[in-house]
Amino acid sequence: MAVITVVGAGVMGTAMTFPASDNSHEVRLVGTHLDEDIISSCRSQRFHPRLKRTIPEAVQPFSYTEIAESVAGADVIILGVNSNGVHWAAETLGPHLQPGQIILMVTKGMESTPDGNLEVLPDVLRNHLPDSIRDQLHYAAIGGPSIAGELAARRHTSVIYASRHAEVLPRLQQLFQTPYYHIWTSTDIVGVEVCVALKNPYAMAVGLATGLLEKQNGPDAAGAYMHNYAAALFAQGLAETAYLVKLLGGQIETVYSLPGAGDLYVTTQGGRNSRMGRLLGLGMPYSDAVEEMPNETIEGVGAVIAIMPAIEQLIASGTIAPDALPLLRTMYHIVTRNNEVAFDFNKFFSHLPFNPPAVAANH
Amino acid sequence: MAVITVVGAGVMGTAMTFPASDNSHEVRLVGTHLDEDIISSCRSQRFHPRLKRTIPEAVQPFSYTEIAESVAGADVIILGVNSNGVHWAAETLGPHLQPGQIILMVTKGMESTPDGNLEVLPDVLRNHLPDSIRDQLHYAAIGGPSIAGELAARRHTSVIYASRHAEVLPRLQQLFQTPYYHIWTSTDIVGVEVCVALKNPYAMAVGLATGLLEKQNGPDAAGAYMHNYAAALFAQGLAETAYLVKLLGGQIETVYSLPGAGDLYVTTQGGRNSRMGRLLGLGMPYSDAVEEMPNETIEGVGAVIAIMPAIEQLIASGTIAPDALPLLRTMYHIVTRNNEVAFDFNKFFSHLPFNPPAVAANH
Repeated sequence: MAVITVVGAGVMGTAMTFPASDNSHEVRLVGTHLDEDIISSCRSQRFHPRLKRTIPEAVQPFSYTEIAESVAGADVIILGVNSNGVHWAAETLGPHLQPGQIILMVTKGMESTPDGNLEVLPDVLRNHLPDSIRDQLHYAAIGGPSIAGELAARRHTSVIYASRHAEVLPRLQQLFQTPYYHIWTSTDIVGVEVCVALKNPYAMAVGLATGLLEKQNGPDAAGAYMHNYAAALFAQGLAETAYLVKLLGGQIETVYSLPGAGDLYVTTQGGRNSRMGRLLGLGMPYSDAVEEMPNETIEGVGAVIAIMPAIEQLIASGTIAPDALPLLRTMYHIVTRNNEVAFDFNKFFSHLPFNPPAVAANH
Repeated sequence: MAVITVVGAGVMGTAMTFPASDNSHEVRLVGTHLDEDIISSCRSQRFHPRLKRTIPEAVQPFSYTEIAESVAGADVIILGVNSNGVHWAAETLGPHLQPGQIILMVTKGMESTPDGNLEVLPDVLRNHLPDSIRDQLHYAAIGGPSIAGELAARRHTSVIYASRHAEVLPRLQQLFQTPYYHIWTSTDIVGVEVCVALKNPYAMAVGLATGLLEKQNGPDAAGAYMHNYAAALFAQGLAETAYLVKLLGGQIETVYSLPGAGDLYVTTQGGRNSRMGRLLGLGMPYSDAVEEMPNETIEGVGAVIAIMPAIEQLIASGTIAPDALPLLRTMYHIVTRNNEVAFDFNKFFSHLPFNPPAVAANH
């Protein structure tokens, strides 16, 4: 039995309390300052209003004013804040962390550093923690297709736990695996984080096809959808993921398994990125579309904005080929310049062992 | 301008007449003995009843009794029969083929040879043609996400044309590419064929989740679906595809781009394999499910039955590890032994650089 503290009472962090409780750990759920209503509901009614589910009996809810005591003595601290919350988490948790604790990050992604490189969020967290503690902790992250509500429903969920600290992985696997929560472990933290960061913008891209079809009044008289269009974007998204994973030193196997293909697939099956994609596909400029989804964090937008400055610098320095990542760059222009949705498909699948389409003179 | 003959008047073969006509070629559409009603409708009304669409003006329909004249002088013969029709095609077309003709195969897949190896269908065709002609033809194949009705609707469609005869690829690309039909070329015929053969059984597997969810009366009170379950099967399907592609000497890039990920994605978005998967997921034994879909060819079933004898021999000879391909083997047992739908998820993702879940003593 271990002490598990989940920081961030959003749906994914809270979902992690289900396998943790099922494995008989002492489980603490501490909200951020944005989660007070949730924690209050968890305390008074044992009900999580966003997850729409009763929380397990073993879970002890903590207010953000009690962060110090919630992390004291924890064996594992699960970080479940959103991507923008990593700096906050480093600052807030930093003074209370103890040597030997494991930080297991549900929070996913990458961001651009001031010097123009891409940094995965576990490294961002580490680098923003106090000098005195940062090297005395272990860092791990979760990747793979894991919709929070399904994990909390104890439905089969298959994920990868990744860490540079290989020695903590068997322990984490043992702490959290259950008959419904299947955990593989990997040391490819870079591959996993690149995959999870990019799935959101690429799922948003796949979602464009839904809107584009609706704009044409749906399937035509013969029943033709736009699945070929969506599938080309899906494939290009995965190929661009592979390009960046290889460039940053990750493993290609991470791309064509759970963290890459599996998580991209699940993210296309619904959720906010897909809905934003649909609005953009309908022809709505991004600045209007974002007003249609007030108070919703569109992770795909956040990710592409967090990543692109580094991509542009890496292109400028010659590390990334200027014709690479055309889908990611187009998505960036759609959400930052209100560009209309249009792709030059023939620019896709460069840097693969294929010969691209030629532009016929008569087209 | 070239002469293009499409053999097999099913939806995919006929869809190919749209880009061919748009590029001003002479286009001939010849049915098999099973296509007489279609050819008759194309002749009398210029309407394809299964594609539900008027065929292009330039298309000349031919009856199967006119096969000889339909292929005479053709530059490219597009083979659009179903996977079971390759032997018929070799026998029927063989006597009429002329040196220098290009066979472009829409018909996809692999089959087991009598000596227990896997052979891709372009090689099966070649090996069944008369000695006198087989080495005087060029063979190519199409892979990637291409739903026939969408290609015929001139919606953006992105595919790979693959051939061992690299010299014919630029010609084929030039003959068929249009502003909506995007063609990359590759010499990885093995990778492309493995991907297209396996997408059907794996899409059927992904479809199981739909039935399993319905069997539980749909999403639970909190709105939980089974997308994590489906995504794990998607990812495992792609990882198994990668395993076989590498084993047979194909290129991994083929897996994480259009022929692998893209085509698997599009195949999960509807169609007969998904519908069969749903019935099986509902708990219907295969022998009952197949009666619910009379007169429909379920390609995923055909593919797994065509492939598995060779897989079993390759396992027996030590070429394939006995714990590899657990999803494909389970699908085989579901459709040949009426096994119920159940997976040991912890057996997935072997032969990747991940440590698998341990089986906890208390579960």
